Amino acid sequence: MNKPKIQILEAEPSPVDNPAAAGYKVFNRIIDWITNDRLQLLNITDRINEIVRKSGVRDGLVHLQSLHTTSSVFINEWQEALLHDVKSFFEQVVLREQYYRHNDPQYSDCERKNADSHMRGMLMGQTLCLQVRNASVLLGTWQSIIFAEFDGPRSRSLAVQVSGV
Amino acid sequence: MNKPKIQILEAEPSPVDNPAAAGYKVFNRIIDWITNDRLQLLNITDRINEIVRKSGVRDGLVHLQSLHTTSSVFINEWQEALLHDVKSFFEQVVLREQYYRHNDPQYSDCERKNADSHMRGMLMGQTLCLQVRNASVLLGTWQSIIFAEFDGPRSRSLAVQVSGV
Amino acid sequence: MNKPKIQILEAEPSPVDNPAAAGYKVFNRIIDWITNDRLQLLNITDRINEIVRKSGVRDGLVHLQSLHTTSSVFINEWQEALLHDVKSFFEQVVLREQYYRHNDPQYSDCERKNADSHMRGMLMGQTLCLQVRNASVLLGTWQSIIFAEFDGPRSRSLAVQVSGV
Repeated sequence: MNKPKIQILEAEPSPVDNPAAAGYKVFNRIIDWITNDRLQLLNITDRINEIVRKSGVRDGLVHLQSLHTTSSVFINEWQEALLHDVKSFFEQVVLREQYYRHNDPQYSDCERKNADSHMRGMLMGQTLCLQVRNASVLLGTWQSIIFAEFDGPRSRSLAVQVSGV
Repeated sequence: MNKPKIQILEAEPSPVDNPAAAGYKVFNRIIDWITNDRLQLLNITDRINEIVRKSGVRDGLVHLQSLHTTSSVFINEWQEALLHDVKSFFEQVVLREQYYRHNDPQYSDCERKNADSHMRGMLMGQTLCLQVRNASVLLGTWQSIIFAEFDGPRSRSLAVQVSGV
Repeated sequence: MNKPKIQILEAEPSPVDNPAAAGYKVFNRIIDWITNDRLQLLNITDRINEIVRKSGVRDGLVHLQSLHTTSSVFINEWQEALLHDVKSFFEQVVLREQYYRHNDPQYSDCERKNADSHMRGMLMGQTLCLQVRNASVLLGTWQSIIFAEFDGPRSRSLAVQVSGV
């Protein structure tokens, strides 16, 4: 392997001081919605930024946690063509139509036949933690926060916690 | 793509105020166990909740970090049939019996032949961060915290940190 | 499934008290570099530890967030043979040469033809949160922090936030 030549371009050289350090706070919310399709992607970036702004936290973390196993939260570019590919990828990497014990009445009392939804949720994760800087969610130019429904249509809840100063 | 119709059902409308903001604390623990099988899943939800209760943190985060590359921590439903499928999925998505340089004495001094364990650990991640609310781990009805052993039997350590107010 | 026999070997029995609880702080940095290859792995462990040491945080969290969708941050062992396998795994689990709408001028104006890079970044995640204990990043013996470039060569930025006491 060729040794990576890391060229360090140091940015933001001075630390962000927090004179109001005693002002540490935790701001909790739960947001809900109803999904339309079995496999659906929602752009929740604006909703999260709205909560961060309301929280009064300037520097810290925003933590997102879907309260369901068959869903996920992650980052990607929000472009229609790419979202189509993302859905195809989930269908390829976790097959729906193969044998699963979770879908077999002999082994399981789950009537949703949603083993594939469980695998997709597990693979992509139910949580996402992002930095809060200058009172808004830190995101790169092309980064959007995406909620993935893997077993809709259903009612879904996302717990949002903003903490910091 | 049909535009997602997000129906916002706002819940928990008032912020959780933290009058005792000066009471920010960090509570560290390491828990250990010995696994029995090469590929094994452990439900550690009760252990984590016990630590959160002891921590005295009411609102904040609990961070779990396995100290090994060939293991993971993630969320899924704890149902026997599904756990069988989860193991099969790991065996499908990362093959054990293909060629890996890490398993080849010509390139590697690793005697465990565990390249597949490394891929599985990397894919699923060694860390999990969850919200603490009302002095317990926030989890949806069907969510359990699962530790995955990918290269057992071995002695394993999990670092648990609870922080907040 | 045979029931896992968890043998709890309790370690670190006393809590870490933080007398200076009022000293909660957030320390922000952005580090930059230029990558050389389309698919490249960088060991950034030392750089992160340096930032944690400078932060003055003794107990808390260090959060890493790549500001790009086609890159990732994760943990694995830093061994040359294994890194070769890791790259092969990414090429296997997400194929570059299949049809993607994101690469099709009929559907997308992206000229980089990097749909595979997006899938790899999404699968592995752009964020990583680790514990800070005793003023350094908590890592197991074989754990290194790896930045993965999936669409290089490019200029890349990683946001690092250390928070705690």
